[in-house]
Amino acid sequence: MNDIPLHQTGLDPEDWSQTRALGHRMLDDMIDWLASSRDRPVWQRMPDEKRAELRVPVPAGGQPMAEIYEDFRRLVLPYSSANEHPRMMGWVNGGGNAAGYLAEILTAIFNVNCGGRDHAAIEVERQVIAWAAEMVGLPPQTTGVLLTGSSMANMVAVLVARRAALGEEVRTQGLGAARLTAYASSAAHGCIPRALDMAGIGSDALRLVPAGPDYRMDMSALRTMVAADRAAGLRPFLVVGTAGTVDTGAIDDLGAIAGIARGAGLWFHVDGAFGATAAVSPRFRPLLAGIEEADSVAFDFHKWAQVPYDAGCVLVRHPDLHIRTFAQSLAYLTHAERGLAGNPPWPRDLGPDLSREFRALKVWMTLKAYGTQGIAGVVETGCDVARYLAARIAREPTLELLAPVTLNIVCFRVASGAQDLNALNHEIVVRLQETGIAAPSTTTIDGKLAIRAALFNHRTVCADADALIDGVLALSSSRTK
Amino acid sequence: MNDIPLHQTGLDPEDWSQTRALGHRMLDDMIDWLASSRDRPVWQRMPDEKRAELRVPVPAGGQPMAEIYEDFRRLVLPYSSANEHPRMMGWVNGGGNAAGYLAEILTAIFNVNCGGRDHAAIEVERQVIAWAAEMVGLPPQTTGVLLTGSSMANMVAVLVARRAALGEEVRTQGLGAARLTAYASSAAHGCIPRALDMAGIGSDALRLVPAGPDYRMDMSALRTMVAADRAAGLRPFLVVGTAGTVDTGAIDDLGAIAGIARGAGLWFHVDGAFGATAAVSPRFRPLLAGIEEADSVAFDFHKWAQVPYDAGCVLVRHPDLHIRTFAQSLAYLTHAERGLAGNPPWPRDLGPDLSREFRALKVWMTLKAYGTQGIAGVVETGCDVARYLAARIAREPTLELLAPVTLNIVCFRVASGAQDLNALNHEIVVRLQETGIAAPSTTTIDGKLAIRAALFNHRTVCADADALIDGVLALSSSRTK
Repeated sequence: MNDIPLHQTGLDPEDWSQTRALGHRMLDDMIDWLASSRDRPVWQRMPDEKRAELRVPVPAGGQPMAEIYEDFRRLVLPYSSANEHPRMMGWVNGGGNAAGYLAEILTAIFNVNCGGRDHAAIEVERQVIAWAAEMVGLPPQTTGVLLTGSSMANMVAVLVARRAALGEEVRTQGLGAARLTAYASSAAHGCIPRALDMAGIGSDALRLVPAGPDYRMDMSALRTMVAADRAAGLRPFLVVGTAGTVDTGAIDDLGAIAGIARGAGLWFHVDGAFGATAAVSPRFRPLLAGIEEADSVAFDFHKWAQVPYDAGCVLVRHPDLHIRTFAQSLAYLTHAERGLAGNPPWPRDLGPDLSREFRALKVWMTLKAYGTQGIAGVVETGCDVARYLAARIAREPTLELLAPVTLNIVCFRVASGAQDLNALNHEIVVRLQETGIAAPSTTTIDGKLAIRAALFNHRTVCADADALIDGVLALSSSRTK
Repeated sequence: MNDIPLHQTGLDPEDWSQTRALGHRMLDDMIDWLASSRDRPVWQRMPDEKRAELRVPVPAGGQPMAEIYEDFRRLVLPYSSANEHPRMMGWVNGGGNAAGYLAEILTAIFNVNCGGRDHAAIEVERQVIAWAAEMVGLPPQTTGVLLTGSSMANMVAVLVARRAALGEEVRTQGLGAARLTAYASSAAHGCIPRALDMAGIGSDALRLVPAGPDYRMDMSALRTMVAADRAAGLRPFLVVGTAGTVDTGAIDDLGAIAGIARGAGLWFHVDGAFGATAAVSPRFRPLLAGIEEADSVAFDFHKWAQVPYDAGCVLVRHPDLHIRTFAQSLAYLTHAERGLAGNPPWPRDLGPDLSREFRALKVWMTLKAYGTQGIAGVVETGCDVARYLAARIAREPTLELLAPVTLNIVCFRVASGAQDLNALNHEIVVRLQETGIAAPSTTTIDGKLAIRAALFNHRTVCADADALIDGVLALSSSRTK
């Protein structure tokens, strides 16, 4: 056996001093980069020649770490997705925060696996779940698990609801002839039908309940659709209330949905991807009334709560059902009463992941650093800036607001100056991004292509909203001249 | 509107100097902690009073960051899951590496969302996927996506295989009357039946093909079972080859499975959670012959390749089928030809996640820092230490090796000195953990409870293997006196 090294250091450096020095430099450089974001274009397209530079065969030998960092600075850093930037207004993206950044330094080197076992990270995650339940008003016994994001959190909720409807056998026997149907507003997020697709139920089983002019689910339509499906021999099992639609920020009447769900024996799930975070604001909490009656809630800490990506969360009111949806008995993963294999239930008994980084630390540190009042401040400021933006739009004769502003999302368009307004507004959004002025996204509201500004970055102020409108007006007048 | 702040800094500090200083301190402290791991007990149970200290209501106000860090040092750091430790030998856990740690500093502050859009992180992920395909021998057109881990990667593969078997309609219509069956060795990982469970097919649809005395799938049994199911009117659609079983490290005859899959029209998926990484070693590559014929491969970069948690990967040979399993058409997520919404397909068209942190950077930096030769060195050393451990066990009269050592996993037990050997060996493992000597885990091999030592940490040397055996012998003699 003399070819076996009795001592070797694996991948670790003999001396950590260079690694330390480079780490310190990276941290300083990245904070400089972050602190100067306002002075940069919000987005720059990565040039094709730099894309091409990435495309090399997998390296056989190693390269000094400092050179790799230079590659990062040259090829990657200038071409971010702009989440850090105060004038990023597209889609739904949080801006990150210092407590979360610092937590990730700890998490990386701590490098625990949070699939299970008896260690502190599991306890921290349990505490974060307890805090999340407290924030939205679910009872103390609530179980939950951190995931990548609300797509997975909604998927977990669908699986628990499926298990609740069909019993243990669905796990072993599959769906069989069960003709399940689910309900959500027509403004619900696309990850809801996708969860039904992945779960084998099929996305057509999701009945899209019409939304009213306020983009909230029509309650009488919900009642009618459930009754009609039941009369047709189908099996309604789930209703999803949306707390903050992605298009307009509308919040369904969660209390009314809870009542209908209770009456009809449906699982009541709330997709609160970003909107559930508004529960920490006394000003906006009333809009979410009824969320505390939910059987399950999905939301993200990386959106309005500004935790760095990724940190989704699902909460389930019924611990036993939750565990029975995911727990398995496996020889090599047996729980023990003592030792490292103790401390059930494990997160892998509550969700689909067995390999899981320590997401909970960045959430725990963010909530400790700012408290719910700090997060409420971010929520309220975002909504204030949205209100400011909507008022500015109302004052501009060429602009048109396309939906009421419930929270922090403003959908509008240039309403004159071209025959094809959809093409005009699309082009304006692309040009805003390409010129680096601001980065709204687009959506479609009642067939009209909307410029969609979502105020999720905690660095965004009213001046940024003005910069957006000034940019829109300049581009529309140059396009329509 | 004069209640709206025109300027505010959100959650960012006015002055970053304290954050910088604390970050530098954290980085230095964590490297000190890592570099001294060998001198610590491998695991310490978190005391109940410290668990209790975590259990406070969600904070309303904030707390200084330095205090939060003290809480981390006191309540969390001493109670890790031990992945960093050279004598962590339980389950399947990589040890992390410096390039990955540094990458996470960059990732945290960069804070991009990798669900999609046109930015550099997406390009880096594509390159990492190309490297992964190259490492296992899949063709250049291979698509893939990074995920939390192999549980999700195997789930994605099951969904693509389901889509391949049933066509587009399965996404909208659900499984209906399709009576799908899948096949894997009886030694396959529990996430395979769980993926079938989540996908609505049901875990009973997974036929567990008997394994031979070498713990590899019995090929003639596979043929017989597929034929019998087909004759019974069922619809065989998927066969999963395991490259490195979790119990013993056995590798199925992937070339033979590929041939049977081709002949029977089955999707050929390889679960190579840890074993696929051995493809970078010229010494072990021949054991994986046939993996290059797979329709899909799942594996983790955070296991044998030592990337910090979490970094799973799925590769799919058929880009079109892969995209057609996940892509959706959604108004607010429309791809554009130019601007930030350009550059399809997006990762969210290839997997279930829309919110995704920049996992690719830590993989990219790890592969650049050490090259495939560096990773191959880790693989080969782990297997050498396992061979050394097995030889030591063979020399000890009271110990018994319970399975052949294919790669880096050694299953053995104390074979005398108690009537209930299962209870004895279980107690020895718990005591090894509680005393902090070493942290193997347990599994069951042919009804016998095994002490399972898996040599995944790149810091582990033969002296650590000796410490394990010395500890086992000392505990067994004290128990059996």
